[in-house]
Amino acid sequence: MIYFQCDYAEGAHPRIMERLMETNMEQSLGYGEDPYSEKARDLIRKACGQPEAMVQFLVGGTQTNATVIDSILRPYQGVLCAASGHINCHETGAIEAGGHKVLALPCGPEGKITAGQIYEAYRSHMDDATAEHMVQPGMVYISNPTENGAIYYKKELEEISHVCAACGLPLFVDGARLGYGLMAPDNDLTLNDLADLCDVFYIGGTKVGALFGEAVVITNPALMKDFRYMIKRHGGMMAKGRLLGLQFLVLFEDGLYWEISRHAIRLAMRLREGFRECGLKYYADVNTNQQFPIIPDAWLETLSKKYAFSEWGKMDETHTIVRFCTSWATEAESVEAVIEDIRKLSDK
Amino acid sequence: MIYFQCDYAEGAHPRIMERLMETNMEQSLGYGEDPYSEKARDLIRKACGQPEAMVQFLVGGTQTNATVIDSILRPYQGVLCAASGHINCHETGAIEAGGHKVLALPCGPEGKITAGQIYEAYRSHMDDATAEHMVQPGMVYISNPTENGAIYYKKELEEISHVCAACGLPLFVDGARLGYGLMAPDNDLTLNDLADLCDVFYIGGTKVGALFGEAVVITNPALMKDFRYMIKRHGGMMAKGRLLGLQFLVLFEDGLYWEISRHAIRLAMRLREGFRECGLKYYADVNTNQQFPIIPDAWLETLSKKYAFSEWGKMDETHTIVRFCTSWATEAESVEAVIEDIRKLSDK
Amino acid sequence: MIYFQCDYAEGAHPRIMERLMETNMEQSLGYGEDPYSEKARDLIRKACGQPEAMVQFLVGGTQTNATVIDSILRPYQGVLCAASGHINCHETGAIEAGGHKVLALPCGPEGKITAGQIYEAYRSHMDDATAEHMVQPGMVYISNPTENGAIYYKKELEEISHVCAACGLPLFVDGARLGYGLMAPDNDLTLNDLADLCDVFYIGGTKVGALFGEAVVITNPALMKDFRYMIKRHGGMMAKGRLLGLQFLVLFEDGLYWEISRHAIRLAMRLREGFRECGLKYYADVNTNQQFPIIPDAWLETLSKKYAFSEWGKMDETHTIVRFCTSWATEAESVEAVIEDIRKLSDK
Amino acid sequence: MIYFQCDYAEGAHPRIMERLMETNMEQSLGYGEDPYSEKARDLIRKACGQPEAMVQFLVGGTQTNATVIDSILRPYQGVLCAASGHINCHETGAIEAGGHKVLALPCGPEGKITAGQIYEAYRSHMDDATAEHMVQPGMVYISNPTENGAIYYKKELEEISHVCAACGLPLFVDGARLGYGLMAPDNDLTLNDLADLCDVFYIGGTKVGALFGEAVVITNPALMKDFRYMIKRHGGMMAKGRLLGLQFLVLFEDGLYWEISRHAIRLAMRLREGFRECGLKYYADVNTNQQFPIIPDAWLETLSKKYAFSEWGKMDETHTIVRFCTSWATEAESVEAVIEDIRKLSDK
Repeated sequence: MIYFQCDYAEGAHPRIMERLMETNMEQSLGYGEDPYSEKARDLIRKACGQPEAMVQFLVGGTQTNATVIDSILRPYQGVLCAASGHINCHETGAIEAGGHKVLALPCGPEGKITAGQIYEAYRSHMDDATAEHMVQPGMVYISNPTENGAIYYKKELEEISHVCAACGLPLFVDGARLGYGLMAPDNDLTLNDLADLCDVFYIGGTKVGALFGEAVVITNPALMKDFRYMIKRHGGMMAKGRLLGLQFLVLFEDGLYWEISRHAIRLAMRLREGFRECGLKYYADVNTNQQFPIIPDAWLETLSKKYAFSEWGKMDETHTIVRFCTSWATEAESVEAVIEDIRKLSDK
Repeated sequence: MIYFQCDYAEGAHPRIMERLMETNMEQSLGYGEDPYSEKARDLIRKACGQPEAMVQFLVGGTQTNATVIDSILRPYQGVLCAASGHINCHETGAIEAGGHKVLALPCGPEGKITAGQIYEAYRSHMDDATAEHMVQPGMVYISNPTENGAIYYKKELEEISHVCAACGLPLFVDGARLGYGLMAPDNDLTLNDLADLCDVFYIGGTKVGALFGEAVVITNPALMKDFRYMIKRHGGMMAKGRLLGLQFLVLFEDGLYWEISRHAIRLAMRLREGFRECGLKYYADVNTNQQFPIIPDAWLETLSKKYAFSEWGKMDETHTIVRFCTSWATEAESVEAVIEDIRKLSDK
Repeated sequence: MIYFQCDYAEGAHPRIMERLMETNMEQSLGYGEDPYSEKARDLIRKACGQPEAMVQFLVGGTQTNATVIDSILRPYQGVLCAASGHINCHETGAIEAGGHKVLALPCGPEGKITAGQIYEAYRSHMDDATAEHMVQPGMVYISNPTENGAIYYKKELEEISHVCAACGLPLFVDGARLGYGLMAPDNDLTLNDLADLCDVFYIGGTKVGALFGEAVVITNPALMKDFRYMIKRHGGMMAKGRLLGLQFLVLFEDGLYWEISRHAIRLAMRLREGFRECGLKYYADVNTNQQFPIIPDAWLETLSKKYAFSEWGKMDETHTIVRFCTSWATEAESVEAVIEDIRKLSDK
Repeated sequence: MIYFQCDYAEGAHPRIMERLMETNMEQSLGYGEDPYSEKARDLIRKACGQPEAMVQFLVGGTQTNATVIDSILRPYQGVLCAASGHINCHETGAIEAGGHKVLALPCGPEGKITAGQIYEAYRSHMDDATAEHMVQPGMVYISNPTENGAIYYKKELEEISHVCAACGLPLFVDGARLGYGLMAPDNDLTLNDLADLCDVFYIGGTKVGALFGEAVVITNPALMKDFRYMIKRHGGMMAKGRLLGLQFLVLFEDGLYWEISRHAIRLAMRLREGFRECGLKYYADVNTNQQFPIIPDAWLETLSKKYAFSEWGKMDETHTIVRFCTSWATEAESVEAVIEDIRKLSDK
């Protein structure tokens, strides 16, 4: 079975595993106050061009989203996001568990929202005579890349950032797959740009080569106060915190994070072109490590015997949207193999 | 100024005020454990044909919705409702304050949802391989009449009730304006039907002649346990609880509730016909005490000098949806006056 | 049966009822934005000597406590209070419903806490190397008078206020029975003092002559923002808000609030002296409208035939602490009657 | 520096690290639905003698406590626990974040509570005429060993279990250091006994040789429903869930969990005896891997130069309670070294 099902099917990149082994018997303070975590924080601050940023490590994405959002909003405030946003769809109410409404904005297959939508949501709330009877927009959440693999271009993010600042809405970017977005062929955003344009974001490790772990970067000083209390309260403060720091140290000391991301994108683009040459169309036309081709239902059984992939939804009566992911661990041969099999099925 | 702005502009029906005066110096136990509350409970149980129902009195609608919903759902469950439902729009996140997601279903101007929508939402959740990553539908909330004045017909409610039972979803009916719905000319539902078809509902007092108060009727025994703890926790247990009991006693001992409702509906129907004869169209074509005519923006200023009414939203570039409400306190002369003024404006 | 059981057994003071009757058919905007509420706010601001204070009306005490506390604390913060504080004992977790821990401090029968206790709780938290693993003290709650009838003297409140300011802890005073405290014979605190010394407090109506209602006075500007969103979210925004405003208008326009409070205190002091002359001892030695004599268990049955009062707890094997309350509605004859009966029982 | 500061200073037991390396490139389903997790579940069920138990893996202790407790309690219920319980002291309000009050019972230095205390708390609540004004006891939480290193003897646990069953209170045992408790020289409880006597417990991994991870064992079928939804909602569902399963597989396939626990206890008992021979007294007289000797303040500086340990609190003006922990990684030489240094300091 060849896995394209997700980008977290294996363990960690071998260089991470090696370092975990090497340091296993070292003793250190817990809860992220160890030297490895400190070094990793420094590297991330440098990589972002944000020498004053607060960097904290959490274990997983849902936990991170819930912690960040709960730390920013007042009780009566909600978070604006795309209807297909992870916090709206796939976190079993973790945001509502903190008492907050997810204010979902309509979006297309790409899963993006616009500055205009944000402004309109804010304005219509504030203009309403009965504003205090409604949940107040209190921040904005976007994912880059989105849950459907699309990226925000620099101009789009600048516009969003500008509107957020004008409305007093902190902007939070979920970067669970950030590396894959920044390495997308059409991406024009740097990590520095991103850090400049939002108030808080996270650099995903779980889906980009780490065993687990997400690095939250808070650039807005107003959002830093007591953030570690929030981590602990949300059950996200890891006892052996250096496990997180060490992994991000390995990812960022020699550019491994970007190397992993580039590898996955190169194979994703090959897969994308190969499928396209076979005549496949795509649900969302995206250039990151998640690809969403539309295939005839009749192929599902055959393909499933050899490949693991996700069924994302029905496109029409006879076609299914599927998801193929690449990652640091995907091999070129696997991609060629599936392209070849698709070619046979499509008879091209 | 003549008020059509809402159905809670005055105090209480005079018969309620009289009884409050008469009994003012009586002493009683607090928290709804007084004889008046007991009598009112009995009257309501009889009116509903539900001798075993639990009846509890709360102060207002948002409080009641939050308390009932919080008492039914498990933490990871959400409540299915129309996108225009009060709990989704106008309660400042009171449901989310209890940790619960409002699972909004699309609806038309009438603000109704169907049995089919409920079933589909339930089924698609349960069929999903990643169900546990999503909020689980845990109950259904409908308003009758809806926030936009529409009523559920008996057949519709039967279908909803049937689907709810089949899916194990308790059905909760928000009856903030219940009397007006049951007195609508095209209504074919009795209070007994309603009580039979849902698990819990409330009979609104605030908008139907009381100073304040909502009577929650729980017919499903599984939902009764410790409900009073939930009232207290939600800040809804009134110290002088007999104030609530006494009002419902007056409303139900001689049919005052129905008398008030009939009066308001008779005037609403007169207003509706009068406006229609002047050529006005309606946003939602409904037969209850809230009427939503569409008027040219140019009329707004003139009308506002003499009448208080709500602007509900823009219909198009040059027209506005407005809301006119009738209540127990509306006088026939007021209705005739506004019809006459509309006639002049419409030049018919 | 003569009631001493609580201070909310009757309806409202007759002057309040009259005014409710007189204005019953007037029409007004809802949610506290009516002229009566505005006037009441002004009167209260004047009475407090706080021309810039925000005044908002809520329905009951638990609701008020939960709303105020939830509006002040950050999620990981808790509220310091006496172990016998209402929020710790008798609100069915309404504070925890907002996600906040009640940080209970030990107290004696009077139910008071000291500046020293507050400082120590704060300091020990902040000094702890693992502070972020613990709930952070975020505000202080005291009741004046306390749940056990004791009052804070000016010097005590000044000290508490000073410590709170030094530690950055907003001070919230629950004044459910505030009038009775300010009229206590040994009280040396004015309403102006109180308003100066805390950040937010409320003037209780329910237990001091109103049908219901509590007037929240926010003197600290930092705590005013969006407070009405919090009221709505907590289900405390009354549709017919003028009912609240009107009652406080009556209470404060001619000093009725103080008149009521003085009356109750005068009778409470008479009862206190009378019982003492019969040899009774007190659980807490307090000068407000709640009196806690200790009586032999053998008297309970006899007394209960004629008088309603509360059993507060066991003092020892053969004695019970009971509570007798006076209010605006208590009559001098009732007090003399019970003193006489106690005299007979005590054989003095 | 020799570490006795905590039992989670290093990484994982080498056998765990080896297995993580060996399997690193294997591909598997996420979220704990992989074969390793299944095998680990089977092993744990066998080890507990509970073939029908549900076993789920979470990442850390605070997360586990919050998830289990939130899944059991109704909103108005609280959890009874020792005042020194981890959930009451060191989880930054994670339980309150779910809306629940921690109902703390007084306890001695050992941190244990009794069946009698539980029964009395339950009874006094249920007997109270105003029960619904108070948080209802809804379950019991104990730690074994406790936060202060004490264990529950079989008879004590049987009594607690019996009272819990009689009162309808599920019993939850926090076993963050369970292995160390079961290996204590005076322990008379088996893992089977424990599993029989409670409704849910967890087997701690983080502090007993794993990199991280806690295995929740639910033996009461009523508590199993939708538990995985609760894990996800609380941010505790690890993407690469097999990391958890694999670690517990290694811990339980050949008895490594017991081997590690025995090792730590053996060294703790040696340390305990060694210190005692030097004349040291103990804060709590306990036989598990945490030891709490009382030392003169004057020794702190000297000892701290060579050893890392925790200061637990002041015993008196001149003495400090300190904590020394042993673990799988502690070496016999380290224990002998510190005993020798204490001997020198104590001049014995």
